[in-house]
Amino acid sequence: MTNLDTTFSALSDPTRRAILSRLTVGEATVMELAEPFAMSQPAISRHLRVLEEGGLITRRVDGAKRPCRLAAGGIAEIDQWLGVLRQALETNYARLDNVLATQIKERKDKP
Amino acid sequence: MTNLDTTFSALSDPTRRAILSRLTVGEATVMELAEPFAMSQPAISRHLRVLEEGGLITRRVDGAKRPCRLAAGGIAEIDQWLGVLRQALETNYARLDNVLATQIKERKDKP
Repeated sequence: MTNLDTTFSALSDPTRRAILSRLTVGEATVMELAEPFAMSQPAISRHLRVLEEGGLITRRVDGAKRPCRLAAGGIAEIDQWLGVLRQALETNYARLDNVLATQIKERKDKP
Repeated sequence: MTNLDTTFSALSDPTRRAILSRLTVGEATVMELAEPFAMSQPAISRHLRVLEEGGLITRRVDGAKRPCRLAAGGIAEIDQWLGVLRQALETNYARLDNVLATQIKERKDKP
């Protein structure tokens, strides 16, 4: 699996996206994450491992705790890839705009 | 599965991303896509169905052919979701900048 595979796959799960949404308001420990999700700590830990492998979170050591926070790496990598698609879609729209503009002009020019 | 599940999952496969990359240069039929990928047409068709469900491509009817092109819907939906993460990451960086600026100022102020 490349990093793009891992990152997109990490984002395809609703629980993992909910964990990321929670982390937008600040870092959290496994215990803090387990409570609102009504999941066991091992289940949350498994999701966190997938998010970490996808470059979407990082963890730091704070005594016995390992709080998680959002990481920029995964998002940056998929953004770069999505950029190519976005550019192609914009070019298509620009082309469509030209076609429509020509059709409108032709209609107006009709006697 | 929500649409976000479907779209992120569709993007997690390297063949499907390669198909999307190919479509950035213009629409293509299943036959045209099957050749460079050295895959059977049914295998390509299965990938196309996943991309279509994820809102990443659309297909039009042209006689017996059904050419594919990039669609904006899937990208727009995940961009909206990713926007929340991006904003949180930018806020974190801004906060870090402030912390660093304060530390640098404190060092400079030391006698």
